Amino acid sequence: MLAVTILGNNSAVPAHGRHPTSQVVQTGSHHFLVDCGEGTQMQLSAFKMRPIRISHIFISHLHGDHYFGLIGLLTSMGLNQRTTELHVFAPPALREIIQLQLQAAFTELPYPVVFVELEGSTRLFEDNQATVDSFPVKHRIACWGFIFREKKNPRKIDPVRASAANIPINYYPKLQAGGDYIAPGGGLIENDKLTTEGEKGKSYAFCADTIYYPEIVDSIKEVDLLYHEATFLHVEQEKASARFHTTALEAGMVAKAAGVKKLLIGHFSAKYNDLEPLACEAKTNFENTECAIEGACYLV
Amino acid sequence: MLAVTILGNNSAVPAHGRHPTSQVVQTGSHHFLVDCGEGTQMQLSAFKMRPIRISHIFISHLHGDHYFGLIGLLTSMGLNQRTTELHVFAPPALREIIQLQLQAAFTELPYPVVFVELEGSTRLFEDNQATVDSFPVKHRIACWGFIFREKKNPRKIDPVRASAANIPINYYPKLQAGGDYIAPGGGLIENDKLTTEGEKGKSYAFCADTIYYPEIVDSIKEVDLLYHEATFLHVEQEKASARFHTTALEAGMVAKAAGVKKLLIGHFSAKYNDLEPLACEAKTNFENTECAIEGACYLV
Repeated sequence: MLAVTILGNNSAVPAHGRHPTSQVVQTGSHHFLVDCGEGTQMQLSAFKMRPIRISHIFISHLHGDHYFGLIGLLTSMGLNQRTTELHVFAPPALREIIQLQLQAAFTELPYPVVFVELEGSTRLFEDNQATVDSFPVKHRIACWGFIFREKKNPRKIDPVRASAANIPINYYPKLQAGGDYIAPGGGLIENDKLTTEGEKGKSYAFCADTIYYPEIVDSIKEVDLLYHEATFLHVEQEKASARFHTTALEAGMVAKAAGVKKLLIGHFSAKYNDLEPLACEAKTNFENTECAIEGACYLV
Repeated sequence: MLAVTILGNNSAVPAHGRHPTSQVVQTGSHHFLVDCGEGTQMQLSAFKMRPIRISHIFISHLHGDHYFGLIGLLTSMGLNQRTTELHVFAPPALREIIQLQLQAAFTELPYPVVFVELEGSTRLFEDNQATVDSFPVKHRIACWGFIFREKKNPRKIDPVRASAANIPINYYPKLQAGGDYIAPGGGLIENDKLTTEGEKGKSYAFCADTIYYPEIVDSIKEVDLLYHEATFLHVEQEKASARFHTTALEAGMVAKAAGVKKLLIGHFSAKYNDLEPLACEAKTNFENTECAIEGACYLV
């Protein structure tokens, strides 16, 4: 299972009690932080999430509403005596921005920070539980989306057949991993006689800030949950496009074209107090749409 | 009259819903911002204060809890189409930190920012309403306090005497400014026969982050309102001093030695949820003490 908690759902200028972009993506034992707008550390605290659990931070681009909270979060992690390594994936210039601010305070963080520069479409992370990949979107400055994929679950053992074949329990992990059974006498039972396909791992795509950009459809094809910005209603399409943003209507088009299961829209302009019209508009193209709400945890 | 609104009263790590340091000092037509911790723009909005009215920002030192909110505030001012000049008084390194972040976003602010580097004890601002002066305090890195002084109010005209002497109303401003009256026939009435001393202008001293440092007493002598940090209770004196902070007991000692009218304590450690014991402790040395509370406006 994947879980996405929204810490900030607003665009550049905070308004209506809404904060700039940040999300926590949980899968397996991982807590990934995606973007880190101003106030992220307060939002983590408000929603009872512990910064110490975050091991990897992904910064989509260097507009301030996506990273101005990072230096405060890093500093507070240090003041709270963090010692475990932290990985930060971000556009190249971020490293110098952080270092300059640490130097100005004569601060050395008590934990290692590993900066990784974003570039093209790249596998950023992989372990036995999940992968994270980047893909470029189209914004006023270099900007990336991220796809989080759980690894496929292990094969399911058919208990009736396994028991009928007298397979010892300590052999089960091999079967779950896809291996055949070789009996003590040398007889072989093929794996697919004893197991069925494991459940497909879930997937989540975060598309950051982007103009309506159908080229991303290939990257996000059939994900279980798609987060797409919908900064404006379509009546503001001209403004949206001039600022390299997407309208709610267009976000629905992207979700439909990519054949995703569910669409979450966010990065709302400060001009909208009521968000419902944005969801309604997206739904005209893609019914299973929700507005990303701060503090809500979306399970995939 | 001076008014001080507290936007953040906590020390380095935000906690208990409290924010890092920031205050608005209002006098005459001025809105001065003092320090700008992370989240200051949201706090301004929460307390219905308009950033456009801020003309001068004073940053005491480059620990993040005193300035990490500045870049977000400057950026939002730009997105909100500010065109009027903004003056920022700060330690030298801040200019580069801000410029680097603007460059990374290819952002040019639509209003001029005038950076002024802090150095020693300096008159930072003066007009016909008020003055602002800096003075060094003693912290782990270079750090300054600021004193805001209203100019003395004009002399008060005695209406009975002025009327008895048949002084025309258009002459009143001259009398208020201290001039004598010269009648059309050439007769002279000295100013102090017609007016009394104007009320003394109010004063406010913000002492930023500092170890207990009696040397500042000369700078803040007899101010009407003193804001002094009281990060810890005195039982933590050793820790306070190792971190170049002051205890509540010591803050009271400073207020007493300086003969100020009122003491406001702040910059509370995240370890204290209940702030009352800090005020109680300061009061053992200086009775007229209050804890600075976020959102409260202290009138002087």
